[in-house]
Amino acid sequence: MDGIAVEAGATYGASETRPVVLEPDSGFDWVDTGDPMPKGRNAVIMSEDVTWLDSGAAEIIAPASPWQHVRAIGEDIVATELLFAEGHIVRAADVGALLAAGIWQVKVRRKPIVALIPTGDEIVEPSQRLAGEKPALREGDIIESNTYVQSALVAEWGGNPLRLAVVGDDAEELKSALLGALDQADIVAINAGSSAGSEDFTVDIIRSVGEVLVHGIAQRPGKPVVLGRSSHGGRWKPVIGVPGYPVSAFITFSTFVEPVVKAMLGLRPQEHETVDATLARKVASPAGVEEFLRVKVGRVGGKLIASPVSRGAGVITSVVRADGIVRVPRMSEGIAEGATVKVALLRPRSEIENTVVAIGSHDPGLDLLGSIMRRRTGTGLSSSHAGSLGGLMALRRNEAHVAGTHLIDETTGEYNTSYLAQIMPGKRILLMALANREQGLIVPKGNPRGITGLEALASGHVRIVNRQRGAGTRVLLDLLLKRLGAVPGTVPGYDHEEYTHTAVASAVASGVADCGLGVLAAARALGLDFVPVAKELYELAILEENADDPRVKAMIEALRSEEFKTALQEMGGYDTSVTGLERWWPR
Amino acid sequence: MDGIAVEAGATYGASETRPVVLEPDSGFDWVDTGDPMPKGRNAVIMSEDVTWLDSGAAEIIAPASPWQHVRAIGEDIVATELLFAEGHIVRAADVGALLAAGIWQVKVRRKPIVALIPTGDEIVEPSQRLAGEKPALREGDIIESNTYVQSALVAEWGGNPLRLAVVGDDAEELKSALLGALDQADIVAINAGSSAGSEDFTVDIIRSVGEVLVHGIAQRPGKPVVLGRSSHGGRWKPVIGVPGYPVSAFITFSTFVEPVVKAMLGLRPQEHETVDATLARKVASPAGVEEFLRVKVGRVGGKLIASPVSRGAGVITSVVRADGIVRVPRMSEGIAEGATVKVALLRPRSEIENTVVAIGSHDPGLDLLGSIMRRRTGTGLSSSHAGSLGGLMALRRNEAHVAGTHLIDETTGEYNTSYLAQIMPGKRILLMALANREQGLIVPKGNPRGITGLEALASGHVRIVNRQRGAGTRVLLDLLLKRLGAVPGTVPGYDHEEYTHTAVASAVASGVADCGLGVLAAARALGLDFVPVAKELYELAILEENADDPRVKAMIEALRSEEFKTALQEMGGYDTSVTGLERWWPR
Repeated sequence: MDGIAVEAGATYGASETRPVVLEPDSGFDWVDTGDPMPKGRNAVIMSEDVTWLDSGAAEIIAPASPWQHVRAIGEDIVATELLFAEGHIVRAADVGALLAAGIWQVKVRRKPIVALIPTGDEIVEPSQRLAGEKPALREGDIIESNTYVQSALVAEWGGNPLRLAVVGDDAEELKSALLGALDQADIVAINAGSSAGSEDFTVDIIRSVGEVLVHGIAQRPGKPVVLGRSSHGGRWKPVIGVPGYPVSAFITFSTFVEPVVKAMLGLRPQEHETVDATLARKVASPAGVEEFLRVKVGRVGGKLIASPVSRGAGVITSVVRADGIVRVPRMSEGIAEGATVKVALLRPRSEIENTVVAIGSHDPGLDLLGSIMRRRTGTGLSSSHAGSLGGLMALRRNEAHVAGTHLIDETTGEYNTSYLAQIMPGKRILLMALANREQGLIVPKGNPRGITGLEALASGHVRIVNRQRGAGTRVLLDLLLKRLGAVPGTVPGYDHEEYTHTAVASAVASGVADCGLGVLAAARALGLDFVPVAKELYELAILEENADDPRVKAMIEALRSEEFKTALQEMGGYDTSVTGLERWWPR
Repeated sequence: MDGIAVEAGATYGASETRPVVLEPDSGFDWVDTGDPMPKGRNAVIMSEDVTWLDSGAAEIIAPASPWQHVRAIGEDIVATELLFAEGHIVRAADVGALLAAGIWQVKVRRKPIVALIPTGDEIVEPSQRLAGEKPALREGDIIESNTYVQSALVAEWGGNPLRLAVVGDDAEELKSALLGALDQADIVAINAGSSAGSEDFTVDIIRSVGEVLVHGIAQRPGKPVVLGRSSHGGRWKPVIGVPGYPVSAFITFSTFVEPVVKAMLGLRPQEHETVDATLARKVASPAGVEEFLRVKVGRVGGKLIASPVSRGAGVITSVVRADGIVRVPRMSEGIAEGATVKVALLRPRSEIENTVVAIGSHDPGLDLLGSIMRRRTGTGLSSSHAGSLGGLMALRRNEAHVAGTHLIDETTGEYNTSYLAQIMPGKRILLMALANREQGLIVPKGNPRGITGLEALASGHVRIVNRQRGAGTRVLLDLLLKRLGAVPGTVPGYDHEEYTHTAVASAVASGVADCGLGVLAAARALGLDFVPVAKELYELAILEENADDPRVKAMIEALRSEEFKTALQEMGGYDTSVTGLERWWPR
């Protein structure tokens, strides 16, 4: 406190009728807040409680009690007291406590070095491509990514990653790379190529410099992992053979390397926040392996819903898009729809809670909408492609807030409503128009086959790429072909199914198909040509009970913004005069 | 899959009775898992389903369906599809998705630069001390710590901290430092010294280069914050005047700078996990300010309990030791004991849940026990000093699992049990012995006053430092003095209270007192001398209902370990022959 420092005893007896007068120096010293206590004083009287006499003496009318307004030594930190227990991670405020305690240096655990060896003749370093050394990828080349993911994981866990050069499929070369890595690192990970036999290759090499402890585990993805160790250099060091498929690599590396890095740091593996969620769809899983199921999670209708995403071990986006992991136990053959599952979250729960879940037809405008929503309101849009029908089914099962749909009725030519009546009788639905969009045939640049419309397909001379069952685009194709008198199933390529407009465009770009029905944006994005065939109404279906959800409202607000309409028009093929119009069904 | 790539049409009709034979090259190509599909093929037959003829031809007995065992283009990532919405933070797996998509470079937000200016004539840089430039601290020196804490916070939030040199209390010097900071940084924080008036100083300087928007807020700690801005250099930049007290500095810097840094990064401030907890003690708070109450949190008896820690704005350990923050609203005068409060957690919930809560007498052995527990079992020990009586009261209120206690009964001379009977009648208590420990008079090195025992205190010629009411050591002192025929309250210094053994030792070391009763470890730690006066039993009291808690069991396991006993003996003054012995009360 700002005031005067005194010896409390000298103030005893002071009162309004009998004030005590203290002389400067002999009776008091001025102190400011934070000043050390002058010798011989043991109390502070606040300046507002002092009356100043002309002589410079201080008059007080109440006694001070000893140590009043004095911060005692040891109120904060006392020498030799424990500030932090062993294994503590130093946070920002801790730095202040250390400095205040006069500690300029602390002993910390050395970051373990994890060497990462990519292997495989087919592996191409992104840096080579970036530097123009290998300007183009050849067919069969695989861009190295696993060791980059692992570098980021090791750094996240508090270790020091050491990415080594790609080693080709050569036993001697790999052995020497492994020995070199063991010289420098505390842990070594050998990344198998994705080609056949490369995993056995890893086993032999590890055996040649140490021992193999485990080869293959009852886990999916990640079954072919190799766990070994080597005493090269005098100390046992763990060596792991990581499978080549990106998801297997990610999951096994996380499962087996994180605990070792953390143990070397004196820490325990990070516990992901776990939530209980309702499984949206039945999952079959082979008994005998523990499956790491990637799921999307969203709060719909008051419940957390977990929807499984792609299960392919090669599909890295199944990890990227996942909100969490569900472990299907080894002795189970799967999990029933509607069962409660434990989900270890990969994203902050607050982010998951603040997300609109959209399942249904794929339109590139949804990605645009998601970005604009996020920037404007902070609310996210998690969008899964399941086709228009799939989306309405998800809505019925209460798995989604929103279903993008463009299902034409064969009889009436009207969009969406007849399907709602069939799939969700008795439910009231809000339909928000995204746009009238142009559907057309995506054809190679220059349209080499001279396709001018669907008549070409009816002729049976061109090979198409189709969308999956339940996709609105497929329903439209069937309808248009029938109107031309063709039998859809007989069109060449009819059974070649893709799940998105862009996948259809890719199939055309790669020459697998001559054309496919899709939106203009997809054709443009891949530099292909486009033959318009129909305009259709694309709507977002929302259950009445979710229409007032603040997240859904944030989405509608973004949908109706000029920013969204302008951006949608710029993509081409969209008529935004209907964008943001709403209708209810039943009316 | 490893196998042969074929044109599915060529296999139609194959059966066991009518096998189809395919010739190499013309009829099939060998493929390994991960290989690209050869031109003209659209299905893969697994090698185990092929019978090899001597000619090298492949015989198959079942038709292949188109695209079987073929990963379609676009199963993972298709060109132009949105991988991440704007504002996404790139995680480890995302790096894999970017590389797999052929994206070698991404545009990211620039990290905002936050300039941190320490001010005050009394401020000493730790680096100066480390470099030997200012070898010793003078009285009144304050070691700079706030800008180091802020550096760590800024880095945590994703910004780039820029610590500038200490500026003395000189207006011109500070103005030129501020202008220099505005040239380099996006945000500038001026840290006030702790001396009087230094905050008004900041106000004047900010006004001289821009404008002051806010001076003083209804928040505690942190009231004197200054918020301003300057357009020096052409662009408005925020300037904050941060109060000098460490806790005020920490809270205001977090409250006002984090949202700005995050907004510049396109992010929202991190949401701390919030839990509901029961407030252990009534808290009075002045109406008109919002108080940021620091609390410890523990799960005791199935409930999360929040216990307020020190509220001093200068006590940085009140942040360091806190598990969370409770906001006491502006219009309230406090919160009642037992009320449910929202706690924003500062530590991971899993860590908090895995912690034994100890409240009670202070013994240095508890810190030791905590470190050993953590290393052996991962369970933490959170230990608050409230004296023996305070600990038993906390036990009764179900705020703690464990209370360290050494209360001697004046009549029987027995330890602890008579107090349990009084404070917790009807409750059954487990008492675990920590040790028999030596209590004695802590005296300056060389014992200049020649103190040989408590008789010196009874004489009235030496000045003591005492422990707070309810401390076992004070109870012991009273008892021993009475046995000598002295009236405890008349001993000089009897009213000078400290809360721990080490604080007592500090008071002796600094010359404020001639001696004080405490344990040998405290005297040794500060290089003081020690005159033994009594041995006493220090026990850990545990309610029967908590005795089987796995965390408590982990503590008992550590307490009984040879490692703990050895370390305790090394501290000196402990007889560990009783360590780990248990007794129940009532028997």
